[in-house]
Amino acid sequence: MNTCSSATSPALTGPDTPFAVVDVHRTRRNIARLRARAERLGVTLRPHVKTAKSLDAAALLHGGTPGPVTVSTLAEAEAFADAGHTDITYAVGIAPHRLPRVIALLRRGVTLRVLLDSTEQATFIAAAAREARTGLPALIEIDCDGHRGGLRPDAPGLPGIGRILHEAGCLDGVLTHAGESYSARTAGERRLAADEERDAAVSAAERLRAAGLPVRTVSVGSTPTAHAAEDLTGVTELRAGNYVFFDLVMAGLGVCALDDLALSVVVTVIGHRPEYGWIVTDGGWMAMSRDRGTAAQAQDQGYGLVTDLQGTLIPGLVMTAASQEHGTLTARDGGALPDLPIGTRLRILPNHACATAAQHHGYHVVDGSRDTGTPPAIEAFWPRVTGW
Amino acid sequence: MNTCSSATSPALTGPDTPFAVVDVHRTRRNIARLRARAERLGVTLRPHVKTAKSLDAAALLHGGTPGPVTVSTLAEAEAFADAGHTDITYAVGIAPHRLPRVIALLRRGVTLRVLLDSTEQATFIAAAAREARTGLPALIEIDCDGHRGGLRPDAPGLPGIGRILHEAGCLDGVLTHAGESYSARTAGERRLAADEERDAAVSAAERLRAAGLPVRTVSVGSTPTAHAAEDLTGVTELRAGNYVFFDLVMAGLGVCALDDLALSVVVTVIGHRPEYGWIVTDGGWMAMSRDRGTAAQAQDQGYGLVTDLQGTLIPGLVMTAASQEHGTLTARDGGALPDLPIGTRLRILPNHACATAAQHHGYHVVDGSRDTGTPPAIEAFWPRVTGW
Repeated sequence: MNTCSSATSPALTGPDTPFAVVDVHRTRRNIARLRARAERLGVTLRPHVKTAKSLDAAALLHGGTPGPVTVSTLAEAEAFADAGHTDITYAVGIAPHRLPRVIALLRRGVTLRVLLDSTEQATFIAAAAREARTGLPALIEIDCDGHRGGLRPDAPGLPGIGRILHEAGCLDGVLTHAGESYSARTAGERRLAADEERDAAVSAAERLRAAGLPVRTVSVGSTPTAHAAEDLTGVTELRAGNYVFFDLVMAGLGVCALDDLALSVVVTVIGHRPEYGWIVTDGGWMAMSRDRGTAAQAQDQGYGLVTDLQGTLIPGLVMTAASQEHGTLTARDGGALPDLPIGTRLRILPNHACATAAQHHGYHVVDGSRDTGTPPAIEAFWPRVTGW
Repeated sequence: MNTCSSATSPALTGPDTPFAVVDVHRTRRNIARLRARAERLGVTLRPHVKTAKSLDAAALLHGGTPGPVTVSTLAEAEAFADAGHTDITYAVGIAPHRLPRVIALLRRGVTLRVLLDSTEQATFIAAAAREARTGLPALIEIDCDGHRGGLRPDAPGLPGIGRILHEAGCLDGVLTHAGESYSARTAGERRLAADEERDAAVSAAERLRAAGLPVRTVSVGSTPTAHAAEDLTGVTELRAGNYVFFDLVMAGLGVCALDDLALSVVVTVIGHRPEYGWIVTDGGWMAMSRDRGTAAQAQDQGYGLVTDLQGTLIPGLVMTAASQEHGTLTARDGGALPDLPIGTRLRILPNHACATAAQHHGYHVVDGSRDTGTPPAIEAFWPRVTGW
């Protein structure tokens, strides 16, 4: 298991493959870039920690002290609360059976906001808050682009839901997520998606305020729109998660460069099929996930691009197939295969950092800015929060 | 976390969602079916434990005593050795850095066979066996259908590789896997794939024997071919893994019925978007995996079919989209959506049991044959072996 071998492994040649690697230099640079944007835009940055699910990575988000975060599971909320985080938004629609865990966190002094988009949810949140005699801050999810959950900003039921929450002392604000921005192909489309995301959230907030309901939080964000927004007037906070690591989908969109990708998976060459043009590795979908996010982009990157152990791209080499514990590398456009003997270690840059990271217990951490030779030194192991 | 809530949860209404469920009744029936086939065909059954990765599930494979197994990682081999298994085949091509872990298992008295398909690997296996003064049994991988690794049975290098192994006391036999049988669309095609799988392995074994090299093991298998084979003359053992749970891909192929699917994921309804025809659940790709194996079949089942908590299919309801912690259910062919209020628990039958199971720490176990009412009782928790 990765966790066992990590403590004593001095370099990327040490741990048994496959294993996940994070370049902390790139991670810091990605974090600094969005922090600077949020400061310039005058909004609070509330990173989504669902990508890394790592307390160590989260420690870099706000300059070393716990700051606002977004989570995708109560397991994350509980782990972050244990580590001293007190300002957490749980950005998945609340189910009634979860309220005891939510209330337990609130009673520990954590400001845990829940999400809802229905009268039914507002009603059980209000009832639970009254019964528990506690504040139970809630955000109404607004749908800005037909991607997933939420109420349209002009939905007839919006003020009524706001009122149910307000009368129980639970109304905190509104939240939207431009999930469709992952399909925006140009900077102009991303900018437009960011404007629409802002407009949806702000207009929903204004409708609630016009109904006499106080709205504190107006929360927007996705990694593509967070990097495209130029005017967030009326918005109080910005969310993004993937940006900490970035991935081939984000590079394909133009949100980042390949040189910004901070997550990769180290694999070992275990075979060759020259008659088919294949190099076989021990990194299959168990190590990379089944995510094929770039399949819908102009440049399909298969299951990932390939670098050497130092992180330098091997031009034209793509991971084109995966079974559980096998990956197949091929040369793009019929190019020549590089000479990579059995035992050679490579790194694979993933389609989707959130999905690939989820296949691992944690990350072996290297600092790409310090690499002076081969192989890169492992400086730390960052475990992941798992489960629900 | 699932593991924490399991001990005290009496029913599928207890643990927080999403979580994986195994119906042990169906599992036992699936196991008994292939055991009976293997007995009739006169071959040893060596199940692949990479699907369930569970010592508890493995205890059912051979009637309660440890029997031959196949593994996909050395973490599995070590966990199974710890539990008393002594006859293990590691069916992924061996990399040189793994030999110390292999030799450590051999020295514990485990017959751990490794796999190879090159002179390079045969050479380092032979050298390691000599240096360690231990038997290091090896199987030569044979390619029967161009799916992945292996040597074609007529490959010029085959006898030479066999000789390198034999001279170091390492030659155990040959192994092949008809991976392309997952694309076989009819019973006739699966039967043909089973014949080709057998012929490739047996002819490779005969070539080695004709060169004066002893071949003990002639190993074939995949879930589709294992259930189609009618004549395994010359074969000594049959492998299959997925059959323990089965899944929608296998049902789509006709290898099993929907009623045989033993693995599902319990999710909770968290929202409705009637304007789009969506029911939103808390089971996204983190719970189901990104596997979309049925997308290539005649009937695309999305991310899975939907049952009630008792396991009864809800006709026409399909999980058609997934984000990290959200699943979207839609009615097939524009049918009406069932009335499933927020908080309703459902079970999702997955495309690919191996991939979905890998997203969970383990399985809450129910016995479908005992269900007399609602909700099904949880009888056990089976943890999974994780990592590499």
